[in-house]
Amino acid sequence: MIKLLVAVTFFPLLLSAQTEDSIFIRKIADEILVNGKAYENLHYLTKQIGGRLAGSPQMVKAEKWGAVTMHESGADTVYLQECMVPHWVRGGSDKAEIVSIDNKIQKRSLDALALGNSIGTGKKGVTADVIAISSFDELEKRKDEVKGKIVFYNYPFNPTYIVPGKAYGESGIYRYTGASRAAKYGAAGVVIRSMTESTDNNPHTGAMRYNDSFPKIPAAALGLKDADYLWQTCKEHKNVKLSFFTFGHFLPDTTGHNVIGELKGTEANNFITVGGHLDSWDVNEGAHDDGTGVVQTMEVLRVLKTLGYKPKKTIRFVLFANEENGNRGGLKYAEAAKAKNENQVFALESDEGGFTPRGFSFTINDEKLEKVKAWKTLFEPYGASALIKGFGGTDIDPLKENLNTPVAGYNPDNQRYFDLHHSRSDVFEAVNKRELLLGAINMAALIYLADKNGL
Amino acid sequence: MIKLLVAVTFFPLLLSAQTEDSIFIRKIADEILVNGKAYENLHYLTKQIGGRLAGSPQMVKAEKWGAVTMHESGADTVYLQECMVPHWVRGGSDKAEIVSIDNKIQKRSLDALALGNSIGTGKKGVTADVIAISSFDELEKRKDEVKGKIVFYNYPFNPTYIVPGKAYGESGIYRYTGASRAAKYGAAGVVIRSMTESTDNNPHTGAMRYNDSFPKIPAAALGLKDADYLWQTCKEHKNVKLSFFTFGHFLPDTTGHNVIGELKGTEANNFITVGGHLDSWDVNEGAHDDGTGVVQTMEVLRVLKTLGYKPKKTIRFVLFANEENGNRGGLKYAEAAKAKNENQVFALESDEGGFTPRGFSFTINDEKLEKVKAWKTLFEPYGASALIKGFGGTDIDPLKENLNTPVAGYNPDNQRYFDLHHSRSDVFEAVNKRELLLGAINMAALIYLADKNGL
Repeated sequence: MIKLLVAVTFFPLLLSAQTEDSIFIRKIADEILVNGKAYENLHYLTKQIGGRLAGSPQMVKAEKWGAVTMHESGADTVYLQECMVPHWVRGGSDKAEIVSIDNKIQKRSLDALALGNSIGTGKKGVTADVIAISSFDELEKRKDEVKGKIVFYNYPFNPTYIVPGKAYGESGIYRYTGASRAAKYGAAGVVIRSMTESTDNNPHTGAMRYNDSFPKIPAAALGLKDADYLWQTCKEHKNVKLSFFTFGHFLPDTTGHNVIGELKGTEANNFITVGGHLDSWDVNEGAHDDGTGVVQTMEVLRVLKTLGYKPKKTIRFVLFANEENGNRGGLKYAEAAKAKNENQVFALESDEGGFTPRGFSFTINDEKLEKVKAWKTLFEPYGASALIKGFGGTDIDPLKENLNTPVAGYNPDNQRYFDLHHSRSDVFEAVNKRELLLGAINMAALIYLADKNGL
Repeated sequence: MIKLLVAVTFFPLLLSAQTEDSIFIRKIADEILVNGKAYENLHYLTKQIGGRLAGSPQMVKAEKWGAVTMHESGADTVYLQECMVPHWVRGGSDKAEIVSIDNKIQKRSLDALALGNSIGTGKKGVTADVIAISSFDELEKRKDEVKGKIVFYNYPFNPTYIVPGKAYGESGIYRYTGASRAAKYGAAGVVIRSMTESTDNNPHTGAMRYNDSFPKIPAAALGLKDADYLWQTCKEHKNVKLSFFTFGHFLPDTTGHNVIGELKGTEANNFITVGGHLDSWDVNEGAHDDGTGVVQTMEVLRVLKTLGYKPKKTIRFVLFANEENGNRGGLKYAEAAKAKNENQVFALESDEGGFTPRGFSFTINDEKLEKVKAWKTLFEPYGASALIKGFGGTDIDPLKENLNTPVAGYNPDNQRYFDLHHSRSDVFEAVNKRELLLGAINMAALIYLADKNGL
């Protein structure tokens, strides 16, 4: 490409009634694109602190860093909101290997990660024949063959969905409930095909939950190349024996915190909440999940403060605790808001990665959605103009449930998200600075519009 | 993010008149997402062939590979269209260093790449005091200070433009014309701030051109960290002496080829052209520029053939020669089409990278643009729904100029493009498989619509 003059793809359509808003949003954009701190903050969080699962020493570090950075970003007040969090630890180095094929020793190691919240096999591991199945339907049909075996769920991540989140929605149930469904029929353990369509072999962990009606059995995820290999081997041979070793266990619940900063508004008891979650899985740097949401949240604070914006509502900037394996932070925040009879007029979360903007999804009534859609042209220059109904975010869901708060989720483009989600590859280097900053611009614009014009 | 069921972001709006089209485009998408060859083809082109500047041995390899792959992709006929191409070679390892500051020896090496088409300094290099300027305006004001010096253009890549291509458009003129403008006032050489906003220090090369009225002087690009360092050093000190060494020179023009495949249409002498350029700069793998356009072009062919689509117009799939430093392939193609009186009804190019889709930009009349905009809902499910006026592509521009052909350029999101454009970092690993395939889906949809419904 050598062309030296190109057309601008997005034009701000300045409706006269919206001119003031469009001018202010342009100021937000200029300030963030020139002086934005989100990328540097993300570098610190990912490289100096790293993975920060609830209960870990890194969680404590991240909370301290969050409070300091919230203060530096210009909050009128900063405080920690205590909540008890689960404390699952991986406990060792997960591994898996094929040990024999048709009773002949034939070793091949497979890249595996224990699923979050799962019990470990311990040093002895679990060694058993594999039953390779593609769905719960097949599990039910073959339930009599399951006893004593390792169930290998190879449910595919459907590549034909244009929105990969839909494939995740469908396949996630195997990670979340697969162990207990296999344990019901006497399985010794489960391994699953990772929920991804990535071209590498990194396994993807994530939360699972046991059904207390059945024995707890160990559970691990395999990378895609190894899952394909194991599947093929099981199709070609009668008998494939697998060993896997995991060491996960729960320590007693411990104290975690939501980190909260405020920009005080002029209206008593009216609040807008914007946030991301501070915790992450332990096997990566939690960059896109959800370091980007955390630093975007503080960038929204920084820009509104820097531009001297005086909010009507008190805007709360919240770094939520423990989204990944318990949602205790989100639950605590809503519980406290309800107890104080706070009027939570709107909540926004960024927890779908720090990619280039596409839009926002809203769980709000039709009247409010029409109001939001009238802002479409204000977002068009900055990319997040797809304003649709949809999910807000796990951390703010309890506000919706308990206080009927209108909620929204920031929707970046999510083609790359599940390539790295919950795997070792969710690191700082996978985040693009401009894409990250553009997300913060659109979030700040929405918070500004919701505060100034009401929602 | 643990939510397991999410809303679909884009909904296909099935207007009854468009149902047939939307069904066919869904077939295109399914076929490409499940069986697409573009990613594997890109892997071969980038890793087995690599950078392929016009005239290089890699150009020859790439043409052979292109013809074979075009055939494998299902073309009815494949042929090479000969054209003479310039043959510039880098000729050695470029380097630069600060040698003294205020006449005290103080060495520091700077990462530099010669600009394409520039003459080399040879082994002796150019060593001279630096005059650091920020714009051509400043050059004119300080023209009396330029003689015998190295002019350092530090024109910034404006971060506040939401579309980075606009910043490239503004700053590109320093790379393209800066050497001769400095030579006019007796400069010994020029170094420029690379045209990028990347967070690394890789210099970005690209084409420059001499004005024959002035002496030819060597020219090189510096990475951003080194440009910032040199700028700061020049601001703080009276006298900064720089050496740089480049070895570029032209060999005689040589024979290159456009690689052309065809799907024969039923209408005599009506053609649709779709393409990307096969050449790239020599310092990288030419992945996004323009390996992605090349493999997307052949993916469009493959999917239309696989689905048994019988075009009305003959569809030409063209891998153009020599876009980067001469555009001889594009010129030759239009010249031959004109000589044969071909009716070139529409041309599409992909040369803005293989990122997630945003839309297409058209250079067509208003009546045709209205027709195109009626297809917007057909593109919405696949991301490329921003259908605007704008540039088509360098390779197809001669068709527009000489045959008045309506042209369009595929517009992926371009936030990441100039981070890697013309630098060492434009490699296979920077391309995401799904983003690449989604581009091919939208391109195939546009070619299908333009062929079936006319334009």
